[in-house]
Amino acid sequence: MSIELDSTSEEVERALASAAAARLPFGALSPSQRQGMLHAAADALTDAAGELIAIAIEETNLTEPRLRGEVARTAFQLRAYADAAVGAVRAEIDLADADATPAPRPDLRLTSRPIGVVLNFAASNFPFAFSVAGTDTASALAAGCPVIVKAHSGHPLLSRATFKVLDRALRAAGAPDGTVGIVFGREAGVTALRDDRVSAAAFTGSTSGGRALFDIANARPRPIPFYGELGSLNPVVVAPSAAAARSDEILAGFTASVTGSSGQLCTKPGVLFWPSQVPFAERLSELLGASAVHPLLTPGLQRGYQASVDAVLTAGAELVHGDPSAATVEASALRTTASAIAAAPSALLEECFGPASLVVTYDDESDLLAALHAMEGNLTAAVFADAGDHDLVRAVLPVLEDNAGRILWGQWPTGVSVTRAQFHGGPYPATTNPLHTSVGTHAIDRFLRPITYQNFPEEFLPAAVR
Amino acid sequence: MSIELDSTSEEVERALASAAAARLPFGALSPSQRQGMLHAAADALTDAAGELIAIAIEETNLTEPRLRGEVARTAFQLRAYADAAVGAVRAEIDLADADATPAPRPDLRLTSRPIGVVLNFAASNFPFAFSVAGTDTASALAAGCPVIVKAHSGHPLLSRATFKVLDRALRAAGAPDGTVGIVFGREAGVTALRDDRVSAAAFTGSTSGGRALFDIANARPRPIPFYGELGSLNPVVVAPSAAAARSDEILAGFTASVTGSSGQLCTKPGVLFWPSQVPFAERLSELLGASAVHPLLTPGLQRGYQASVDAVLTAGAELVHGDPSAATVEASALRTTASAIAAAPSALLEECFGPASLVVTYDDESDLLAALHAMEGNLTAAVFADAGDHDLVRAVLPVLEDNAGRILWGQWPTGVSVTRAQFHGGPYPATTNPLHTSVGTHAIDRFLRPITYQNFPEEFLPAAVR
Repeated sequence: MSIELDSTSEEVERALASAAAARLPFGALSPSQRQGMLHAAADALTDAAGELIAIAIEETNLTEPRLRGEVARTAFQLRAYADAAVGAVRAEIDLADADATPAPRPDLRLTSRPIGVVLNFAASNFPFAFSVAGTDTASALAAGCPVIVKAHSGHPLLSRATFKVLDRALRAAGAPDGTVGIVFGREAGVTALRDDRVSAAAFTGSTSGGRALFDIANARPRPIPFYGELGSLNPVVVAPSAAAARSDEILAGFTASVTGSSGQLCTKPGVLFWPSQVPFAERLSELLGASAVHPLLTPGLQRGYQASVDAVLTAGAELVHGDPSAATVEASALRTTASAIAAAPSALLEECFGPASLVVTYDDESDLLAALHAMEGNLTAAVFADAGDHDLVRAVLPVLEDNAGRILWGQWPTGVSVTRAQFHGGPYPATTNPLHTSVGTHAIDRFLRPITYQNFPEEFLPAAVR
Repeated sequence: MSIELDSTSEEVERALASAAAARLPFGALSPSQRQGMLHAAADALTDAAGELIAIAIEETNLTEPRLRGEVARTAFQLRAYADAAVGAVRAEIDLADADATPAPRPDLRLTSRPIGVVLNFAASNFPFAFSVAGTDTASALAAGCPVIVKAHSGHPLLSRATFKVLDRALRAAGAPDGTVGIVFGREAGVTALRDDRVSAAAFTGSTSGGRALFDIANARPRPIPFYGELGSLNPVVVAPSAAAARSDEILAGFTASVTGSSGQLCTKPGVLFWPSQVPFAERLSELLGASAVHPLLTPGLQRGYQASVDAVLTAGAELVHGDPSAATVEASALRTTASAIAAAPSALLEECFGPASLVVTYDDESDLLAALHAMEGNLTAAVFADAGDHDLVRAVLPVLEDNAGRILWGQWPTGVSVTRAQFHGGPYPATTNPLHTSVGTHAIDRFLRPITYQNFPEEFLPAAVR
């Protein structure tokens, strides 16, 4: 696919000017008014699903069932975030108190307001749920912020088609012109990111790309919050009793989690810690050999996948299964030891974006802990353990909690439920700011700026704090 | 004062190593356990007030009543934040639901944990409340984070003495060694800020100094949240009817707010918008002439104050009162017009840290709005208006709300109550991140990182989400 839709500088300027013009009117609507608009957008997306999915299959190689599920999830997000914004309007009131200690205090009323225009760098791997109408767009709109999407180059036609559906539905429901905009091309994205009319940015993608944009956002004369979701290895620790008792079941779950969507998920378990005394290689090889994987999203990702697998092999890992040099992608597993990780972590712990994972065998608790301590931040960390493993769990858990934004027990990290208690974030490089989630209703919080009214007459107060 | 306490590199390393060692044990305490420790620290600070205030008077030129009030506030903050951390433990639970749309969902439980070691760059102008045991330290400790204070060079002896009181009280109450540490000197601060054992930083001070540290924090291999409170002009808009009806009262309040603590407050009203048809200069000059101001905190601040007043005069403002070249500091007022601000904002809108303010006369609503649009972000914005001014208020308020973190009606911005609904933050350059406050119990939120537990057995869940 070599569609060239790169925006001209006039088109970028138009998107910025329109979004800036929409900022105050869209922000001044009530959450209930925006709820109606976002529900209309969700309906329109659902109605257009057939046509959009056909384009998506062409551009991404993803399967139809997967894309259908993703459209449903994307429509759900638009509705759920809009509903949450209605239900969670911030209002904290401290009445005036002349007798307060340490000093008399005035009437103070805390609420929040939209942060301003949000620039959303769409992801390649979820052409709906993390793209034009995806979680970053939905949460920013629910917060009352106009959104400019920087389309991902992996699915430009789908991006354009989805944008038309979204834009038309929002306008028809009464949203101001410029409530959503779109730009294409790296240069257009950087120009918009540097523009003072943009007040926050969100990104989902690679560590190198995300870090470059994060640096640009921070170097602006007026720096802005940049919510980047970058790389994550999502370690899974299988404790000895669990491995001995249920190795087939665990390895099957692992294989499914690594190969689903051809491994192109930010929560794919990239490192499996496995007790060295329990055999795994033969069974894992069988399971991987029986797994169907489809071509990666783009030729660029295919090249990057092969290069990263090669890099891990060059660093000393051995191949358990798969042929990284094959022309079509194959599900792969590599292996190394916990002591090798502890000795030279960065070379072995390169993220392979695709259906490959690294099995790290460990001899005992201290061996395991040394390797875990060598890991950088992650979105998730999982534990599989049985009753006999609880001493090990007590030693390992503090390290995992310290390292990840979501901790799982006996489940695989792929599949991220969109709920209030979800947290999809974590220490760098999982994200650029570990305080925020990009999935779940708290994603909205990223785009709301608190404001306190002191001693205000009721008629000039926002409705939330009257 | 030319005390040299600059930390050696060994001392910096010791502070970092101790804080890193304290991180997990201090973070693992319950909020109630930490509450006891912080109350003990508040008690110790109160007991040592006499001795500490004597040092503070020597080092800062601030008055005894002011410093007494500040110690009381600092002790109050330590207690209030610790109490708030007990009461506001995060716990959001979504039970598993096999029938959930768009997909079945697992049990998810969201809570938060301390972000890690916090580096606190202390401020010059509140030697207690924004210094060693001040709001940043108190909020980080309440969140469960060890703190390394980078002492301000303006009050090194007080910093050392306060640190001893704080450190001794925390240890005696059972806090781990290294729960608080201190370093002296710019180089020590930068070394600590670059160190990977530090996970967040807070700063209160100048825009240039804060921006330099913000850039360092972001340029780290692992960037960290940097909560900087930098510069703020705190515009006050006086509407025509209010000015005509109560000019004496308003100018007296303005004078008190500008000259209190010799104007060395981040919320000092630095710009007063005043209707051009109402006289003010003579009365304001009388009021300022009758105001007692004391020498600024340091000779460096005195030089900076004079330079900034000179810069605003050079940019075309006229002197209403005061002699900026006087050897001892004088309360001063300058004046310009709204159209001059709109034409060349940055030269006239330089922050003068000291007892000076700029009166900006406006002819009508559009004149006023053009000048307000030229302003950068602020901590606060205030309105003085009477019934006849409400049309103007409706036009002005959206611009002020867009520009500041706290909006006041008929009150002066100096004096920042420490309550739950307080918000002391705002768009850049007021702060480096407009989502966060450094005063009030929500200051704690800056140092808590969310984490979700999925499908976890009760015995391994944190108490908050069991």
